[in-house]
Amino acid sequence: MNEKNPMDDIIGYKLRRAQLSTFHDFIERFKEIDLRPAEFSVLRIIHERPGLRHAEVARMLGIKRTNFVALMDTLERRGFADRRTSGTDRRSHALYLTENGEAFLKTAIDLFDRHEAGLVQKLGGAKARDTLLELLSKLTDGE
Amino acid sequence: MNEKNPMDDIIGYKLRRAQLSTFHDFIERFKEIDLRPAEFSVLRIIHERPGLRHAEVARMLGIKRTNFVALMDTLERRGFADRRTSGTDRRSHALYLTENGEAFLKTAIDLFDRHEAGLVQKLGGAKARDTLLELLSKLTDGE
Repeated sequence: MNEKNPMDDIIGYKLRRAQLSTFHDFIERFKEIDLRPAEFSVLRIIHERPGLRHAEVARMLGIKRTNFVALMDTLERRGFADRRTSGTDRRSHALYLTENGEAFLKTAIDLFDRHEAGLVQKLGGAKARDTLLELLSKLTDGE
Repeated sequence: MNEKNPMDDIIGYKLRRAQLSTFHDFIERFKEIDLRPAEFSVLRIIHERPGLRHAEVARMLGIKRTNFVALMDTLERRGFADRRTSGTDRRSHALYLTENGEAFLKTAIDLFDRHEAGLVQKLGGAKARDTLLELLSKLTDGE
């Protein structure tokens, strides 16, 4: 919309609108593979750091422990991820992607790259993206 | 946290974390006057543009019509806002703050200014804030 909105100078409000818009774009693109943003994040983290524990992944993503367990149940049921009992601590589950999970993540990353490229284009280029990421980091520093 | 998080270069993820952090700060500060972010936005918009219609305020804030009606019910019950039937269209309600509502909003704006000043300080100053707002606007342009 082009009209001046009295909320346009409020950081929290603009963050919320931008976040909703970005998630909406993500969800639309990922509909065809039935994957939610948090599920994608978990697959991506397990792929990059195989063997991480439940609690570590949940903490990195800021997901509550109980929500994370339900999310992992879904990913296991779809055959994308495995929980393996650690040798040293039998109650601590290490997380891994299955072969299916790795193949699925490849498709997901293709969709994701198109989503992210669209955002970078909206922002006006990679330099603007880096500036945005840096400013957003400042808002969560110390957490 | 200081460790490198593989999600740190993802725009949507960083937006979500920054938005949650900002809302958390807002909610903590506003606990003492029992006001939620969306309620504050509605009071602020009605104050700045008295006489706006339901549908206009809901659209400006991106709030669903049904949620907006519930929110207005709360603000009316607390004696902060009025719905007045328009002379030209009896089914269309124009929104106004009551005297109590104006006084309450003043307190709320004091709290809000402290919240916003804290965010600007985190970002590194007013110039960084302006840059952030401009980049966030680009993500929602055309909506």
